[in-house]
Amino acid sequence: MFYLVTDMQSFTHIEGGVTAAAGFKAAGVEATVKYTSRRDMALLVADEPCVVAALYTSNKVAAAPVLIDRERSASGVAQAVVINSGNANACTGALGLQNAHEMGRLTAAALGIDQSLVLVCSTGVIGVHLPMDKIAMGVKKAAVALSRDGGHNAACAIMTTDSVKKEVAVELEIDGRRIAIGGMAKGSGMIEPNMATMLAFITTDAVIAADALDMALRLAVEISFNRIVVDGDQSTNDTVIAMASAQAGNQSLSQEHPEWERFVDALKTLCLELAKKIVMDGEGATKFVTVKVSGAATAADAQLVARAVAKSPLVKTSWFGVDPNWGRVIAAVGYSGAAVEEQRVQISIGGIVAYDQGRVAQTGELDAMRRAMKARFFEVEINLNLGDGCDTVFTCDLSHDYVSINAEYTT
Amino acid sequence: MFYLVTDMQSFTHIEGGVTAAAGFKAAGVEATVKYTSRRDMALLVADEPCVVAALYTSNKVAAAPVLIDRERSASGVAQAVVINSGNANACTGALGLQNAHEMGRLTAAALGIDQSLVLVCSTGVIGVHLPMDKIAMGVKKAAVALSRDGGHNAACAIMTTDSVKKEVAVELEIDGRRIAIGGMAKGSGMIEPNMATMLAFITTDAVIAADALDMALRLAVEISFNRIVVDGDQSTNDTVIAMASAQAGNQSLSQEHPEWERFVDALKTLCLELAKKIVMDGEGATKFVTVKVSGAATAADAQLVARAVAKSPLVKTSWFGVDPNWGRVIAAVGYSGAAVEEQRVQISIGGIVAYDQGRVAQTGELDAMRRAMKARFFEVEINLNLGDGCDTVFTCDLSHDYVSINAEYTT
Repeated sequence: MFYLVTDMQSFTHIEGGVTAAAGFKAAGVEATVKYTSRRDMALLVADEPCVVAALYTSNKVAAAPVLIDRERSASGVAQAVVINSGNANACTGALGLQNAHEMGRLTAAALGIDQSLVLVCSTGVIGVHLPMDKIAMGVKKAAVALSRDGGHNAACAIMTTDSVKKEVAVELEIDGRRIAIGGMAKGSGMIEPNMATMLAFITTDAVIAADALDMALRLAVEISFNRIVVDGDQSTNDTVIAMASAQAGNQSLSQEHPEWERFVDALKTLCLELAKKIVMDGEGATKFVTVKVSGAATAADAQLVARAVAKSPLVKTSWFGVDPNWGRVIAAVGYSGAAVEEQRVQISIGGIVAYDQGRVAQTGELDAMRRAMKARFFEVEINLNLGDGCDTVFTCDLSHDYVSINAEYTT
Repeated sequence: MFYLVTDMQSFTHIEGGVTAAAGFKAAGVEATVKYTSRRDMALLVADEPCVVAALYTSNKVAAAPVLIDRERSASGVAQAVVINSGNANACTGALGLQNAHEMGRLTAAALGIDQSLVLVCSTGVIGVHLPMDKIAMGVKKAAVALSRDGGHNAACAIMTTDSVKKEVAVELEIDGRRIAIGGMAKGSGMIEPNMATMLAFITTDAVIAADALDMALRLAVEISFNRIVVDGDQSTNDTVIAMASAQAGNQSLSQEHPEWERFVDALKTLCLELAKKIVMDGEGATKFVTVKVSGAATAADAQLVARAVAKSPLVKTSWFGVDPNWGRVIAAVGYSGAAVEEQRVQISIGGIVAYDQGRVAQTGELDAMRRAMKARFFEVEINLNLGDGCDTVFTCDLSHDYVSINAEYTT
């Protein structure tokens, strides 16, 4: 059964983003990889080699850094992540792979660690080779700038078309120890469940083994980064990396630990908040819409329906136009591939019933929906009344600005 | 093996649209179903009950008229089609079904024929009941206005957000007899392979049995209406109806007839031209793009790739922006679900190689692509170099006007 977080409110939010947890430093510097006068290289470094877990894009065309990180993170140990924005280093062939390796090697040299401990991430335009002189300069600047409160600058440096930086940190107590979990993310376009053009970096000072961190991360990503849609385009570079420094001194976390669920819930809370920030900053987005599907024959069917509705250009433009055009919603439900019986379907928009098993909304109800849709946040609820399958996806509208941003974002 | 038409140029185009073939009359009249001061009801009538074949939406939420027509056309015999625009009569429950039946009954009465011979089509907004007094008035007006050159008015009356009417007619000689095939279509938004918010009506005076007409129509629709994408939204009302009056006096057409292939090719030509007119009139479209995929492991893979590229909002906005952002194309190729090996992929835009098995386009080539993309028509060619699977899809860009049209098209 798909569920979100048992009690979202139970975690205290703290400052510090990706450097909130003990044992991590970060920096974000200007390297003019593509942009000028803004930070575009970030470095995240643990004091010691630490436990790592990571998830990557399922796109068959994966960027060079993803190819490297997949191998390196499989060891369960890492110490640093170097990230550039403005250039994805994707579809760049043998030279691209060589450049990604070099970016890691330069970072290892600047930090005095083994290059097998360095993960490499890139985000930006596809098919352009990295300007290695600028990368080299950026790595040096970042290594010098590393600090315990560098999380903010790092969060700025990983942005591409993002309009705001995205950071969250929470704390909880386990075994009488204060544990912090912090993170930063970037992503605005090319956003689709199963991870999007998005990077997320999460750190914690909890003591946890690599396999347990991997399991916790998968559970958290499944209900957060895998449940957001901006445009339905899936990226070549998606990466979520979690590192644990073990400085909190708790009993090692695993499924056997009595507080395991609470730790997972904290991680879910963090990932969900970062994921929602991505949707809220969706390219050109003016609305944040939660699409909740219940009563599907299976959970898989519920996901099909939620995604079809969240991806439909006609539905998304109607949200932008504050038009309660529920007909487009039911059309998307119908073509989603899920089992659907039109006479059983119920659809609500903004809490107002639009279609109820054959009964359609009247003028007064349509007006009430229009009022609800004027808010920045509203829900679209779909009950198929066929079974117990449910799912929730977070998405945004499709506006003129989305077209402008993506027609003008140039190669 | 997927193929288009053996020799597209070999058929003489003629005037007359859906009334070009002998034995058919049509009309298009103002009934103010939703619109004022424009034709919004059409009637297409054969002189005698004639052979019919039809294909319908695969959306599980199908409109009331689709439910009726599926049953009636299965008999292989029909005499009239009545169509309204402005209201889809979809998601309208038992009353909607009753209204669709009544629309057919009124038409049968006005024409003095049995209601089982009348097919009913609606297109427009979902979830609103038909204004039956206006429908009744429209049927009467249309029955009086029927004429041999009424095809043009009928083609106007079936339009919704269409900006131009869509008609094609061709002729060919079989068994020494002149055979005409004519058609009209509507469709602009909610357009996706497997038929879209589109209606198409095709008439011929050929002698052909119902099962042979059904086979020919399936072959023609597969390479035409099933190969167009505007926005990837699939409608509740898609319908393609073909009627044959048998007035040409040829030997009955079937697979055994020596001219069978030529007849099918003529029907393909007609359907393909109508389908292309729909894409050219895609909501807000400024570009007509042919996406050709070859070298896929299977034909199904080729189709997955072509559709993923044609549906990608990021790719479509880059076309609107005249930006040769082939990275978005290869990203879509990668997430299409097809077998893909990045190092084998070749991509051309407007005849210029953008990505060739690891080699990326340089500045001069990008400039050449930009020049090619300034034209209204260009091709995106993708060779996966893995096998023999190929497919072609016709699509358009995603522009500001698409957003405007669909944000403002109100419930």
